[in-house]
Amino acid sequence: MRDVCVIGIGQTPIGELWGDSLRDLAYQSLQAAVKDAGIEKPEALFVANMLAPRLSNQAHLGALIANHVGWRGIEATTVEAACASGGTAFQAAVRAIASGMIDVAAVCGVEKMTDATSGHITAALATAADADYEGAHGASFVALNALIMQRYMHEYKVPHECFAPFSINAHANAVHNPNAMFQKAISLETYTRSAVIADPINLYDSSPISDGSAAIILCPLEMARDLSVNAPIRVLASATATDTVDLAGRQNMIDLYAARLSAQKAYQQARLQPQDIDVFEVHDAFSIMAALSLEAAGFAEPGKGVDLAQAGEITIQGRIPISTMGGLKGRGHPVGATGVYELVDLVTQLRGEAGPNQVPNAQFGMTQNIGGTGATVVTHILSQEL
Amino acid sequence: MRDVCVIGIGQTPIGELWGDSLRDLAYQSLQAAVKDAGIEKPEALFVANMLAPRLSNQAHLGALIANHVGWRGIEATTVEAACASGGTAFQAAVRAIASGMIDVAAVCGVEKMTDATSGHITAALATAADADYEGAHGASFVALNALIMQRYMHEYKVPHECFAPFSINAHANAVHNPNAMFQKAISLETYTRSAVIADPINLYDSSPISDGSAAIILCPLEMARDLSVNAPIRVLASATATDTVDLAGRQNMIDLYAARLSAQKAYQQARLQPQDIDVFEVHDAFSIMAALSLEAAGFAEPGKGVDLAQAGEITIQGRIPISTMGGLKGRGHPVGATGVYELVDLVTQLRGEAGPNQVPNAQFGMTQNIGGTGATVVTHILSQEL
Repeated sequence: MRDVCVIGIGQTPIGELWGDSLRDLAYQSLQAAVKDAGIEKPEALFVANMLAPRLSNQAHLGALIANHVGWRGIEATTVEAACASGGTAFQAAVRAIASGMIDVAAVCGVEKMTDATSGHITAALATAADADYEGAHGASFVALNALIMQRYMHEYKVPHECFAPFSINAHANAVHNPNAMFQKAISLETYTRSAVIADPINLYDSSPISDGSAAIILCPLEMARDLSVNAPIRVLASATATDTVDLAGRQNMIDLYAARLSAQKAYQQARLQPQDIDVFEVHDAFSIMAALSLEAAGFAEPGKGVDLAQAGEITIQGRIPISTMGGLKGRGHPVGATGVYELVDLVTQLRGEAGPNQVPNAQFGMTQNIGGTGATVVTHILSQEL
Repeated sequence: MRDVCVIGIGQTPIGELWGDSLRDLAYQSLQAAVKDAGIEKPEALFVANMLAPRLSNQAHLGALIANHVGWRGIEATTVEAACASGGTAFQAAVRAIASGMIDVAAVCGVEKMTDATSGHITAALATAADADYEGAHGASFVALNALIMQRYMHEYKVPHECFAPFSINAHANAVHNPNAMFQKAISLETYTRSAVIADPINLYDSSPISDGSAAIILCPLEMARDLSVNAPIRVLASATATDTVDLAGRQNMIDLYAARLSAQKAYQQARLQPQDIDVFEVHDAFSIMAALSLEAAGFAEPGKGVDLAQAGEITIQGRIPISTMGGLKGRGHPVGATGVYELVDLVTQLRGEAGPNQVPNAQFGMTQNIGGTGATVVTHILSQEL
């Protein structure tokens, strides 16, 4: 098994990008990534996307994007696991290189959501849930997350405003990210006064509907040394685990079994512990998910994720900084691309290029990309040291 | 890099399976495959599917199927490349094992098409084409294939009935496949008199809309020896290549560039030549695609694929038997599952378990799984000898 490195990253701004098509967004992030890596083109492209078949009438994105970028002939495919598509596509690229079958691979997460009507988008997002046992009853994706948050508040006797620090931290960090969708800070008052979307989830507990694309170039460690690439970042662990897609099938809906299992596998692969991790890009599609991810990954006991946030430990200066470039909440959440954005943000941190948002002395970083309400979870651990 | 083997196969019959849900079909093929392999469960599941997000309102099939089969916790994801999804999912599994990160992997191709209305299915299938440059003009998938067939007939001055042997051979072989959708032979007269679907493609040039699921279990070669599995089949080559998704973007629409490139890469990996291949499972979604695949893979000169068929060389007794269990035409074409069915059929041949359809002394076999009108092509070469 060969060791694998990230040698290039690229991204588009996230927003309502009505002037750019799906393939153009992918083109922009991939061009930026190959330029960053100093390579001409990869041998293989792994596209992460969830919604194009429904919102853009377009499947088959691998070949479509490879050719649009001018890489006719290369291997290309799409990897999908709902909102965890980005993490799984990155994992596929890591393995292609680790196996020795591919030397240079590109990962491109891309999603174009805002051209569709809101009803159409809501129905498309619900395909991340169980169509027969949840969707058929009219449960939207935000409603399912609201059930989890309600249960958490009930079990642990936590008032809603305890979740405010997740949103405030994400928005504060997004201010300094030029690619973030919402580059503005919010106050506690803004959070508590915001409109309820699906009780108890309010507007500021929710990530936005977004367009965007992020890309990563990977190669074997020995090749990264030969290429004398600027600051290659090593992949120490890549682990996916699953749980039931339907909430009703779980023994405990406020303990993310797949997130816990995936994190355990990742720590084992990297030979690290939670205390070794300097920065953690969480999947804060809803603030409840940030709390549960911190707990599942071993940074807080069950029910104590909100305490960690209340204590200021999730900020850039805290014990375990999360959503350092704005997270899904502030940076934006183009669903299929999100897992790749998380990794791009982490690489930015480990390279020491995060500017005002830089986590001091970040050596080991982790991402956790969550599909559905926790049914697929992909954990990656990256290292600044080779 | 570790060598990889197929140690188990499973499949459902193909047809209009209104009594079985998408997940139940996957359950059936996976249960059959793990039983065949003599294992309890895999560590990772790679699902091949194209249409569930549109036709079943269900994305996120990896976790959904893993949990439905009772494998809570295992790694799972979906791999998609339109009609080539099956081949790319198999490739992802091969690499996961070759990398050393996974020991036992399952591949499950599944598609449930017949519950939807024909207009809905046609629109969903068109997502394999270019939505902006082809779909927007109303080009259905069969219409695009008709353009290719028309061009072939024009360039090579070939009358339509020269394609009859592809359909007749596929149907003749399907007679002895209990899982085939159409277990009946057809005559030349049936072919020539059948209704035109999109000129010059007639009913018997076209594969059917189908439901079905096929599954494969893989493991490293050394483990297959330890498990003393019955007749493991070795993966000698796994190669994907791409071309433009839109036909208009190609230099020559009757030369399948990606198929040629993918086959060349596969021969190189396996250190074999076309003359070494004993059986070839082609992607005969339309009879024109069978001819073009034979030409691209080096079994006939350009324009001579139909001559090979006319000379009887594609039958079980011929030089290069194709569609030996009925192919997409006779066995059926549940699109996302088709690439897995092709591999299951090939493994059946290499094990010597094809009954009346057995290709004598089949040692090396090849599959070619085609996405879109040739935009993604995945070629696999398998060996009966370890």
